Amino acid sequence: MRIIRYLNKNSSSVLGAVTDQGEIYPLPYSGFMELVNQADLVGVTALKLIESLIAVMEPLEEKIDELELLVPIVAPEVWASGVTYEKSRDARNYETSSEILDNGTCYDKVYDAERPELFFKSTAARTIGPNAPVYLRSDSTWQIPEPEVGLVISKTGRIVGYTIGNDMSCRDIEGDNPLYLPQAKIWRNSCVIGPAIRLAETVEDPYNFQLICRIFRADQLVVEGTANTSQLKRRFEELVSFLIRDNEVFDGTVLLTGTSIVPPNEFTLKENDQIEIEISSIGKLSNPVKLQHSKEVM
Amino acid sequence: MRIIRYLNKNSSSVLGAVTDQGEIYPLPYSGFMELVNQADLVGVTALKLIESLIAVMEPLEEKIDELELLVPIVAPEVWASGVTYEKSRDARNYETSSEILDNGTCYDKVYDAERPELFFKSTAARTIGPNAPVYLRSDSTWQIPEPEVGLVISKTGRIVGYTIGNDMSCRDIEGDNPLYLPQAKIWRNSCVIGPAIRLAETVEDPYNFQLICRIFRADQLVVEGTANTSQLKRRFEELVSFLIRDNEVFDGTVLLTGTSIVPPNEFTLKENDQIEIEISSIGKLSNPVKLQHSKEVM
Amino acid sequence: MRIIRYLNKNSSSVLGAVTDQGEIYPLPYSGFMELVNQADLVGVTALKLIESLIAVMEPLEEKIDELELLVPIVAPEVWASGVTYEKSRDARNYETSSEILDNGTCYDKVYDAERPELFFKSTAARTIGPNAPVYLRSDSTWQIPEPEVGLVISKTGRIVGYTIGNDMSCRDIEGDNPLYLPQAKIWRNSCVIGPAIRLAETVEDPYNFQLICRIFRADQLVVEGTANTSQLKRRFEELVSFLIRDNEVFDGTVLLTGTSIVPPNEFTLKENDQIEIEISSIGKLSNPVKLQHSKEVM
Amino acid sequence: MRIIRYLNKNSSSVLGAVTDQGEIYPLPYSGFMELVNQADLVGVTALKLIESLIAVMEPLEEKIDELELLVPIVAPEVWASGVTYEKSRDARNYETSSEILDNGTCYDKVYDAERPELFFKSTAARTIGPNAPVYLRSDSTWQIPEPEVGLVISKTGRIVGYTIGNDMSCRDIEGDNPLYLPQAKIWRNSCVIGPAIRLAETVEDPYNFQLICRIFRADQLVVEGTANTSQLKRRFEELVSFLIRDNEVFDGTVLLTGTSIVPPNEFTLKENDQIEIEISSIGKLSNPVKLQHSKEVM
Repeated sequence: MRIIRYLNKNSSSVLGAVTDQGEIYPLPYSGFMELVNQADLVGVTALKLIESLIAVMEPLEEKIDELELLVPIVAPEVWASGVTYEKSRDARNYETSSEILDNGTCYDKVYDAERPELFFKSTAARTIGPNAPVYLRSDSTWQIPEPEVGLVISKTGRIVGYTIGNDMSCRDIEGDNPLYLPQAKIWRNSCVIGPAIRLAETVEDPYNFQLICRIFRADQLVVEGTANTSQLKRRFEELVSFLIRDNEVFDGTVLLTGTSIVPPNEFTLKENDQIEIEISSIGKLSNPVKLQHSKEVM
Repeated sequence: MRIIRYLNKNSSSVLGAVTDQGEIYPLPYSGFMELVNQADLVGVTALKLIESLIAVMEPLEEKIDELELLVPIVAPEVWASGVTYEKSRDARNYETSSEILDNGTCYDKVYDAERPELFFKSTAARTIGPNAPVYLRSDSTWQIPEPEVGLVISKTGRIVGYTIGNDMSCRDIEGDNPLYLPQAKIWRNSCVIGPAIRLAETVEDPYNFQLICRIFRADQLVVEGTANTSQLKRRFEELVSFLIRDNEVFDGTVLLTGTSIVPPNEFTLKENDQIEIEISSIGKLSNPVKLQHSKEVM
Repeated sequence: MRIIRYLNKNSSSVLGAVTDQGEIYPLPYSGFMELVNQADLVGVTALKLIESLIAVMEPLEEKIDELELLVPIVAPEVWASGVTYEKSRDARNYETSSEILDNGTCYDKVYDAERPELFFKSTAARTIGPNAPVYLRSDSTWQIPEPEVGLVISKTGRIVGYTIGNDMSCRDIEGDNPLYLPQAKIWRNSCVIGPAIRLAETVEDPYNFQLICRIFRADQLVVEGTANTSQLKRRFEELVSFLIRDNEVFDGTVLLTGTSIVPPNEFTLKENDQIEIEISSIGKLSNPVKLQHSKEVM
Repeated sequence: MRIIRYLNKNSSSVLGAVTDQGEIYPLPYSGFMELVNQADLVGVTALKLIESLIAVMEPLEEKIDELELLVPIVAPEVWASGVTYEKSRDARNYETSSEILDNGTCYDKVYDAERPELFFKSTAARTIGPNAPVYLRSDSTWQIPEPEVGLVISKTGRIVGYTIGNDMSCRDIEGDNPLYLPQAKIWRNSCVIGPAIRLAETVEDPYNFQLICRIFRADQLVVEGTANTSQLKRRFEELVSFLIRDNEVFDGTVLLTGTSIVPPNEFTLKENDQIEIEISSIGKLSNPVKLQHSKEVM
């Protein structure tokens, strides 16, 4: 069972449940965490609650591709983890390899350390959903998407759902100095989550998500890569336990869990590229790439 | 199925559903109209929505008499209709019968006219719920409750629920001049609705509500009367259609539909009287009568 | 000193002070009552507070006719009084004169009674400001403006300002039965106040306001009338004292004080008429007359 | 002129102006940015607006030490900059000096680079004001306050005020790996701003703020240090320009500008220490140090 948000014919935002058969039912809650908390309140799983609700409903006539999808949860904060896959360590080492300084070794070190890398990735205002444009940063010449599994957590740190995240990154800024990481990670429309949230209780093995990332330029496939969460160096609960250590988190926080798909080093995103990230049991997250023109956005 | 609002142990206001068996379930909506609108949104009746929600829940341990009930809906406006029963016409004619002027005939006339009497009865700030004190007006010596069926309507004029209303009235001020009607009807705590809203779709025949009104003084029953909506001269939809003619109404507006229970002409309410109005399928609305002392209320 | 509200170049609503010389200064308050309450808080008159503020400011370049004026106060409630002038009594007697019933005498009676007529005229949602369209009621064939002085009062009943009001009225519905008064008075866009509020402390004699009303049809003057508050049968404080008797009012409530300008009996407003009401020391309140088409307003 | 927020006798939060003579006047605005925006709206400086408001007012009887001060602005986001003083570079190099890796050089590098270090420090929920407890992180054994000048900026990046900030930091976690910076900087109650905001237009030379930091243990002064913004390597406008590059910021964002006061390397904060940071023209920011016990904070 997956959860989406979409605009109905009256341009109201509606929560929806998508069954394994692809049928969509509107849900009478204003957001994903209201659903989760209501299920908690009455002592059942969110899945059971949804099943009981949709038993008396008719599904929408539309299929998911016909809906105007919104970000599936208005996450108050998006955090991210890095160097959780071997490939990410190698890529980030590479970024700094032509430098005199050998900062790259900080990636080797965190890969093997007890404490993971965690960083503040985005706020609700900077996070977009499916089909909205990701923006390129104007002062970077080496930008890539980072396709990741996103954990939706409650304020107590419970993993209540899984989604797809795109942690847009500037490899040149980050490679220049690890202290530039926030500038390489946070800017307008630099974080995407969606298109759906898979209920945690419907995922048998979260360490067997298969991710595919494709980048299209002028309708041609120019980058393709895959990864599997079986390659993760860390457990999801381990990442969350560090996130909530001495730290308050809020209902619906999303924690991105690192990437293992890295485009070739000579690749950088360009305006009008199209990014697609897919996990078959969650959905396909597609976004066009745009330059932000000050007139439009200010 | 009836809807109430009550204070829970944390002093938060909670919406609740009361089944025909008297079991109470908290509902995950901030108010009655949010419930109605969410049901509309997902294409089921409010009844179906509630039934599927409570199918997976445990009821409260408390019974309705053990809860601190609030006004069941914070109605933005309460309107009222008059002279919709023969008895009301007679009573209001009587008020003016000792006068030289024969204004009384305006009641005869409206009883038979196409256009009903409608008036602005109350705002949210002046409307109270069960068990809160109704105030006596300081410049009237002939005051009575008017027990009425209240229609809860949506902004489009759809009747979505039925409640009980008490349209407190000053017979002397009103009888003095029909132009004094607003002063005979609107003052602090002069309007009561509650204790519950019966979902419209669970009412088989709205023209068969039996109302009982009892007034107690020093614990003695001093007035009792009954009425039945089968005696109504007008249809509820007819009253609503005049209310929304050229006029904007708002979600959760309540329209009181006139009274047919009139205490004996020598009766007037006194401080510490207790008013009870009951419709068996909706509940019993009880309120003490108080003088308002400027120190308490200012 | 007069107070207005207008839209600035960023389409923000701004409070403004208009000096006797016609210079306009933006005021750093969100509304008229915030100004009044802040003056109270610091123990000066609103006039003194404004004078101190504008001493350090430059006036706007625009004159009042060049600004997009808004309703000068978002009054939570507008109440009105009737039969406060001899002429109003006569007009309302006339409305009913062709009837078999002699309801008209209720107007004679209230004119001479201790208790004035007071009625609930409008809510914020139904009240418009200068230049916005007043709507005609679709089921009336005899509609007129009622030009009146409006009192702006605080929640304690203090008169803090004077404005102009137009209490749109359906003479046929009202004349048919005094019980129809609310339907003859309340509908969408049936109440206008503006264009400015004159601070009470700058009015030497409120019983010497000269009102002029003009109605234009196809740019031709078709009705003109004048009145003066010296002709009032009641004192403003007397009207307010009845309004707040046992009744809670809210900061910024407006009380309209009755009319003495009545168009000829054969006159009724038509679509595209233009209504102008002027009090020289307050301003000129102009509104076009429109039919409301359901498509536009729903 | 300085701006504070405090609780009045009704436990309402009130904005206040503190004159150079120490007199305090309540201001009729809900927050600091509303004051700034209202001044903009009427075309005067915030200083002029305050001066004309208080010209007609009486000051409070209380002095600033007698008020219950709140955080002076509920900043939606607090960002921070690092290595903006030579001393900070040296201190952060030292943190890593005993390591086999030479990450320390990333501090040398950023000190000389065009692009400054910027990081996301705190959200409104994690930021406290004067006298509230800062918490120690449970998994660090080397924790210090970082006393800094804070810039209050508008959503366009204009510097509208100066405050004092305490950027609590874990030197061991940060020193372990630059990728751990967010964990060394962000946790519950790890950011302090206050006690007041000095209006930008009243600061003659922002590069001449003298900071004093004192830490008391059992009422004994155990650490004292001073710094002056004349030692800054960067201009405030330069830091802001990087913060808003491609990035949306929000009215009232605070940007901390780096530290030059570093306690001796053998020093770490302990429970019940008292931290004082003073800039004479802004005020003295005092906070006790506490361990967070899960029972208290959850």
